[in-house]
Amino acid sequence: MSDQPEPDEVLEDEEAVVRLFEPLARAAGAFALKDDCAILQPRSGTDLVLKTDPIAEGVHFLPDAAPADVGWKALAVNVSDLAAKGAMPSAYLLALSFPSAPRRGWVLAFAEGLRQAQEAFGCQLLGGDTDRRPGPITVAITAIGSVPRGRMVRRATARVGDSLFVSGTLGDAALGLQLAKDATRAAAWGLSPAMARHLCARYHRPQPRLALAGALRAHASAAMDLSDGLAKDLGRMCKASGCGARVQLADLPLSGAAQNAVDADARQYKSVLAAGDDYEILASIPPAKEAAFRAAAAAAGVAIALIGHTTVGSGVAFTGFDGETLELTGTGWDHFAAGRGDGPGSDGGGTSAV
Amino acid sequence: MSDQPEPDEVLEDEEAVVRLFEPLARAAGAFALKDDCAILQPRSGTDLVLKTDPIAEGVHFLPDAAPADVGWKALAVNVSDLAAKGAMPSAYLLALSFPSAPRRGWVLAFAEGLRQAQEAFGCQLLGGDTDRRPGPITVAITAIGSVPRGRMVRRATARVGDSLFVSGTLGDAALGLQLAKDATRAAAWGLSPAMARHLCARYHRPQPRLALAGALRAHASAAMDLSDGLAKDLGRMCKASGCGARVQLADLPLSGAAQNAVDADARQYKSVLAAGDDYEILASIPPAKEAAFRAAAAAAGVAIALIGHTTVGSGVAFTGFDGETLELTGTGWDHFAAGRGDGPGSDGGGTSAV
Repeated sequence: MSDQPEPDEVLEDEEAVVRLFEPLARAAGAFALKDDCAILQPRSGTDLVLKTDPIAEGVHFLPDAAPADVGWKALAVNVSDLAAKGAMPSAYLLALSFPSAPRRGWVLAFAEGLRQAQEAFGCQLLGGDTDRRPGPITVAITAIGSVPRGRMVRRATARVGDSLFVSGTLGDAALGLQLAKDATRAAAWGLSPAMARHLCARYHRPQPRLALAGALRAHASAAMDLSDGLAKDLGRMCKASGCGARVQLADLPLSGAAQNAVDADARQYKSVLAAGDDYEILASIPPAKEAAFRAAAAAAGVAIALIGHTTVGSGVAFTGFDGETLELTGTGWDHFAAGRGDGPGSDGGGTSAV
Repeated sequence: MSDQPEPDEVLEDEEAVVRLFEPLARAAGAFALKDDCAILQPRSGTDLVLKTDPIAEGVHFLPDAAPADVGWKALAVNVSDLAAKGAMPSAYLLALSFPSAPRRGWVLAFAEGLRQAQEAFGCQLLGGDTDRRPGPITVAITAIGSVPRGRMVRRATARVGDSLFVSGTLGDAALGLQLAKDATRAAAWGLSPAMARHLCARYHRPQPRLALAGALRAHASAAMDLSDGLAKDLGRMCKASGCGARVQLADLPLSGAAQNAVDADARQYKSVLAAGDDYEILASIPPAKEAAFRAAAAAAGVAIALIGHTTVGSGVAFTGFDGETLELTGTGWDHFAAGRGDGPGSDGGGTSAV
């Protein structure tokens, strides 16, 4: 698409915007984005798994975000949900809203990020629409995936006594967002330039854990993706499943960069637990399947960490580094944010004192 | 849902908003809106037909619109596309964005309008999400319908020499929007109160022509719904199909109310031809199938009108009441809006002189 001239050209015509997405819409049922609707022919024996989660400028991405990152992220946040359900994405619909006519260069770069994402995730653009409205740029994607019939991994089916695993590392994206807003934090957190880049990339380019989909279908009693922070999302899984959970702070997987950040400022544990944008997977695994799940994840090349267990009762209890239980409800965060000397990160668990 | 107290209560919690939509999500695959994704099990032998078309406050509905009308319209505009493709709706996903926490009463009324629409159209809410972002209230629906495999009616397949039909009447919604903004026009246009109510209802509660879906599948070489005005949408069908079209102004179907309006002000023909929001169907019918299409439409109880034919070449030519050809491109509208003495509506065709 780089042969298009005049990146500064303002695209007054909405159809001119849509035309820039044609290279992403090669599926027969997309009709090159020239029909009113798209067609999807599901394979027999499969269930379709559907998700729509719009992202908006200033809410889900920064106003100065690179448009290619916006395109990537808009698809990735939806595909992340599919992955957590054990589904593989096949197609998606795009509705793109601009407050004023966009520049060709912005749209082309956005489409390039989207193209990279759809190639990485193995799906295609099936239908696209654009309109003009006040407010932030908004990208509304509906992602469509498939699972063998009856095999979607649900949120509400965790069982008491399950082992709780998360993929990857937590908190990176939330810390990356802080860096994107205030680059001086990198020095305060003792980050190398590579560490700072890592955190920012985790915010701008979330990586849905599609490689884990098969392992989840085979072994998980429940799963969901982490988009609103572990504390909130695990609370949702517990509430839906009618159980509680206990999680050890010391067992939460942190990247080297995030470890530096919480070592430097224990209040950043809030980024790890509650700030969202992780797009990692939370899985509830029956003890009898734990070994097989670990093996399947290893074979898939996805790091997983055991962080706790589901329990009888309700609510999520976090065990701090000193063995104290932290109830992270309401004012629980104030407790954290106060940065007490005996707060998390102040001792044990491999973290140094603040 | 009327047992909910406190319509003025502000719903700070997004999950509290989603809960109000649970009664609309009875399908098994919706998981009562409590999972991250929804499941759809397509019937074998069918193609899924997909459409996403968001509507926004101040753009697609008025800021003081009744929330029940907004709910109805959000679904209707998407279902209208499905109907034009010969598809029947089965399910939809909803993403609802508010600039600030909504009031319970607004959300309940919106959900009630949506409920009325889904019952009228025969589909169910499958997944729902809500978020907070600046800008207008936005309702993004992705509608999913089905057709027998390979039978979706396309836009790009009209053939030269086809007869062009539209369902219902044109321009009512555009005139209704004007009345909603300025009620004094009703008197200027010589409308009875019932006529004024009719036009407003046509704007607020579009009626997708689902009853025509079977007739379209059986007889149409191409079809699309009219959302941006006949002139623009017919132009799109012609461009996609590689043909032109000629349409007779005198043959355009007008309601009694719209007839009064154009009689009183010939410039209102612009509302009939170019102002959009009709949500009627434009169908291109081979001459050999015309009689059968008429019979099928009559059996379905949907009024249709022959308005012209597709032609060799490109572009849409409108024949005025005096036989003159009006080219409605660019300044063509100025030609109309100037309200010349010899303009449309000034003589013949059953309209009285202005």
